[in-house]
Amino acid sequence: MDEFTLIRTYFAPLAAGFRGSLNLTDDAAVLDIPAGNQLIATTDTIVEGVHFIGSEDPSMIAKKLLRVNLSDLAAMGATPYAYLLAGTLPKKVNVNWVKKFAKGLSEDQKLFGIALAGGDTTASFGPLTLTITALGLIPKCKALRRNGAKAGDDIYVSGTIGDSALGLLCLKKKLPRDRYLQLRYLLPQPRVALGEKLRGVANACIDISDGLMQDLGHICHTSKTCARLDRPMIPLSPPARKLIEKKSALWNAILSGGDDYELLFTAPKDKASAVAAISRNLKIPTTRIGSITTGKNIVVEDGGKIVTPAKTGYKHF
Amino acid sequence: MDEFTLIRTYFAPLAAGFRGSLNLTDDAAVLDIPAGNQLIATTDTIVEGVHFIGSEDPSMIAKKLLRVNLSDLAAMGATPYAYLLAGTLPKKVNVNWVKKFAKGLSEDQKLFGIALAGGDTTASFGPLTLTITALGLIPKCKALRRNGAKAGDDIYVSGTIGDSALGLLCLKKKLPRDRYLQLRYLLPQPRVALGEKLRGVANACIDISDGLMQDLGHICHTSKTCARLDRPMIPLSPPARKLIEKKSALWNAILSGGDDYELLFTAPKDKASAVAAISRNLKIPTTRIGSITTGKNIVVEDGGKIVTPAKTGYKHF
Repeated sequence: MDEFTLIRTYFAPLAAGFRGSLNLTDDAAVLDIPAGNQLIATTDTIVEGVHFIGSEDPSMIAKKLLRVNLSDLAAMGATPYAYLLAGTLPKKVNVNWVKKFAKGLSEDQKLFGIALAGGDTTASFGPLTLTITALGLIPKCKALRRNGAKAGDDIYVSGTIGDSALGLLCLKKKLPRDRYLQLRYLLPQPRVALGEKLRGVANACIDISDGLMQDLGHICHTSKTCARLDRPMIPLSPPARKLIEKKSALWNAILSGGDDYELLFTAPKDKASAVAAISRNLKIPTTRIGSITTGKNIVVEDGGKIVTPAKTGYKHF
Repeated sequence: MDEFTLIRTYFAPLAAGFRGSLNLTDDAAVLDIPAGNQLIATTDTIVEGVHFIGSEDPSMIAKKLLRVNLSDLAAMGATPYAYLLAGTLPKKVNVNWVKKFAKGLSEDQKLFGIALAGGDTTASFGPLTLTITALGLIPKCKALRRNGAKAGDDIYVSGTIGDSALGLLCLKKKLPRDRYLQLRYLLPQPRVALGEKLRGVANACIDISDGLMQDLGHICHTSKTCARLDRPMIPLSPPARKLIEKKSALWNAILSGGDDYELLFTAPKDKASAVAAISRNLKIPTTRIGSITTGKNIVVEDGGKIVTPAKTGYKHF
């Protein structure tokens, strides 16, 4: 099946009904940006053997690819709008693979309200390499930024932390098999609805892709602040809690591992009830895990004892 | 050098001065779209060993990557605005390579008036794989499309055709070395200024990336028309002319080879003087090479004889 037939058969249906895509017939998409909005644009690549294993169901790979990009939109508080897909496909990628891959995209498009606007497919001798550029919309000047954290802000995370890093250790057979943790690695849940509601509430926001310590470092660095975390308050899933009770050295994976795709955000104390209400309405747990400070480092405490991981990925310069 | 230092040192300067990039500090770019404009969005990947050789000066690879994307914007008549860069970098890519690569981008950003808005860098065991998503602006409903060609339209191309395909044959040592032809393959000239001026003048437009026959096929297919080309009118560069005089079989490479990144467009007969004036003002040659027809096939003629290549990549269904 040649490139054009592939596009017509499996990708054009993902663009159908979205006028700006021109049904993938032209050199580029033509997108309307509603008045009063800004465009949010982000791009993320996943590579076989680096970000995914390769033997996963193609629909899972498709969803992970789309979701890591949606998570970046969520971190900015944006509403998903459209995406462009660039795929570098090795020979082993056959029609059946593409069919399943497109099915995964189709399901997630419906779930997150986003449409395919354009793309490029390329043959390659290398590993399967997939790039999505996701476009979102946001009312003017409402984008959540990393640089707005203020000393005294509460620090929150959504969901639970560390599942994905532990799930990867399970998949690598360094920990016993655990379906829940593995699925958290394979299929992140981008917090799009939460990001949208945090406009005007959060002072700073980021998604946890590099790891809690490192991503908190990004907020502190751009905001010229520091932070104190209370380790016992960090929300863990039941399987993660069970593992950490047996082996406390796993705190390192939980604090520094990546790929959680939860939101990490800060808000002034007087927004605590607003955060709680958003959380309740969306049925997305958010947990206060510490405070923004004027200190010199990011400090993690447990019962008055400092337990900051040796490698935090951040030092206030 | 870690990812963040790399971004701060070599990529952030490419985004400096462009407000929407947020200096690459956040999860995504925040872009203003001027009122009355639509956003044009396109993505293209180039892979080592497929679209470039790998041993080229990194600044040339950077320019080719940006330019193939700019050529898609040109085909739509868009004005370049911003781009996102996703790079999958094998180990051999060192700091010096990145420095030269960024220098190439910097030079072309100035030349074409576009800025870096965001990106992603990833380590890989595979070949160097680079994706750009280019964003352009166009006044509402002015985008050039492929589907507007009408029977009776003149068919034009910019520049000269086939140089790039011949240049690649030179680089592959299937033809004698020729600096001019090779450079045409290595460093395309996207016809951005011409695309902008063709708004309201051309009925249909595409850039020649797949080859003259195939890309004309795309116009005919979407416009539900056919075409007749007059082969002797196809503009050739002096080195291409010399080669074809020795070996007329090379017409196949000229007609069906890709990577010219010239514009192929159609315009009604009464716009001929407008096309000529645009061409003169921009000092970009445009040549009438045939007509859009209501026929059943794309036909290439030479002195009344039909010389259509066996494989045109197109058949009217």
